[in-house]
Amino acid sequence: MQEFALIARLAQRLRARRGDTRIGIGDDAAVIAPAAGQELAVTSDTLIAGRHFPDDTAPFDIGFKAIAVNLSDLAAMGAEPAWLTLALTAPALDASWCDAFIDGALAAIGAASVDIVGGDTTRGDLSITVTAIGTLPAAAAITRAGARVGDLVAVTGTLGDAAQGLALWAEREQQQDAHARFLIERLCRPQWRNGSVLRGLVHAAVDVSDGLAADLGHILSASQVGARIDIDTLPASTALMHTVPDAAARRRMQLSGGDDYELCLILPAAQVDAARAAVDAPLTVIGVIEAAPGLRCVDASGAAVDPLQDRAHGWDHFSG
Amino acid sequence: MQEFALIARLAQRLRARRGDTRIGIGDDAAVIAPAAGQELAVTSDTLIAGRHFPDDTAPFDIGFKAIAVNLSDLAAMGAEPAWLTLALTAPALDASWCDAFIDGALAAIGAASVDIVGGDTTRGDLSITVTAIGTLPAAAAITRAGARVGDLVAVTGTLGDAAQGLALWAEREQQQDAHARFLIERLCRPQWRNGSVLRGLVHAAVDVSDGLAADLGHILSASQVGARIDIDTLPASTALMHTVPDAAARRRMQLSGGDDYELCLILPAAQVDAARAAVDAPLTVIGVIEAAPGLRCVDASGAAVDPLQDRAHGWDHFSG
Repeated sequence: MQEFALIARLAQRLRARRGDTRIGIGDDAAVIAPAAGQELAVTSDTLIAGRHFPDDTAPFDIGFKAIAVNLSDLAAMGAEPAWLTLALTAPALDASWCDAFIDGALAAIGAASVDIVGGDTTRGDLSITVTAIGTLPAAAAITRAGARVGDLVAVTGTLGDAAQGLALWAEREQQQDAHARFLIERLCRPQWRNGSVLRGLVHAAVDVSDGLAADLGHILSASQVGARIDIDTLPASTALMHTVPDAAARRRMQLSGGDDYELCLILPAAQVDAARAAVDAPLTVIGVIEAAPGLRCVDASGAAVDPLQDRAHGWDHFSG
Repeated sequence: MQEFALIARLAQRLRARRGDTRIGIGDDAAVIAPAAGQELAVTSDTLIAGRHFPDDTAPFDIGFKAIAVNLSDLAAMGAEPAWLTLALTAPALDASWCDAFIDGALAAIGAASVDIVGGDTTRGDLSITVTAIGTLPAAAAITRAGARVGDLVAVTGTLGDAAQGLALWAEREQQQDAHARFLIERLCRPQWRNGSVLRGLVHAAVDVSDGLAADLGHILSASQVGARIDIDTLPASTALMHTVPDAAARRRMQLSGGDDYELCLILPAAQVDAARAAVDAPLTVIGVIEAAPGLRCVDASGAAVDPLQDRAHGWDHFSG
């Protein structure tokens, strides 16, 4: 398919729906009209085939994940997603691949009021860069720098699922087990959380993309605090419990496995009930913010443990 | 260099300078604060090594071009550039490559008040996706759809230089000729124009990235009009005249060569002097908008010519 024909096809499928999208796909740039006083959160994430998703991932799932990981970054800022650009590089494109990719992108958006307003198509090894723009009331952004000593550490949903999904990837075709299918779906179609409902309730947030230890570490650095977490409280799905019965192996996966796209929240104890009622996933308190720098793990008995030992804490795309 | 160390280094070099940048590099997303009533132009362009620039392009020039082509898209909308995100994919990164790349990016920004507020670094074949956001007064965007019958067609600067620079690329090391060096610099460091000064003066605009015939064609389609251009008026640099003395070959290059990043403007005759005084490059009138669809070329005698014959009109990244 020629680039111009492809863009015309995309533009047809991606008509703007928001009243504050003045110009969508098809000009040199899109034009958007934020409301007076609105601030905007802006984030860009790239997904590379074979690095951020297995080479043989279905186009629907590639489209889904490319959008979801960016909407997850907006959620971690407390922003409401509004606009996306989509830069797609692919060796070749046919209409059916493209339609499945866009089906996945639109599925990741779901019922949210989000317009894909622009982007680019180029030929090369498969990769996708999405830029997401979300809206925020003035001075309402949730940052990584707001954690205070005595705050609690909580996470949405369950951790370690995507890492185990990846471990099961090679045998997915033979896999009839519902637990395995669940874990692979967690890897391929991560559900971004609605972070905008957490504004005013939490002091800091980050999304768990590189693994809990690494991402919580970003909050600790930015806030100049430390944390103690109880590894026996880390929320695990039934599927993860079932497929990784060894507790030590499971906890390593939950601490260092990336790609879950849950939110790690830092909040005062008094706001836990309100945050739990507001957010669109179970919320589990896993620890507390302390003054001493660094991340300390304890078990249910209170004994210090070091589940990661000298393993890498989270993913680092340039050192792996 | 590890990704986190690299991001820390970039963040250090790219401190926000604009008062309306609330949060720059280092959180899950940047936060920007548009003024009340401001609209924003948003564009994303990807550059792939070996496709959008020669594989052996210097990192400074890669950084320069990745930024310039996006600021050129904002210029074509009449927007003032304000914020950028920069998603860099590279096989490996060292500090000196990275510094040269950022030097080039900052050189392309020049004196403009533009913050690089975020982005991503990933490992893979070299490519860069930049998203640029510019500001616009309400309803002031210059689109491709505003051309009216009787308007004039004009272009800034000179055309064909980048195409000839690419033709000379292979022998650039031996090249001591000032003309050749000029043309290669036009390819590697395209100067984006200041389109914001053209608001209210022009009816339509596009930047010449894929070649004049292709890009003017976008305006004609969007505006449902046609155009007649006098190929003897196409502005050529001294360097292009010198290195491509054959007029027919030169005009093909000027009509179909991409990468010049000049602006093609559609404006009423009464506004030509004002536009010429406002824009930061020479402005040349090359034709007129007509009611009959399509692009017609004539020479100085008024005779119809077809310089491109059945050659491809401009670049198409998926059909080449």
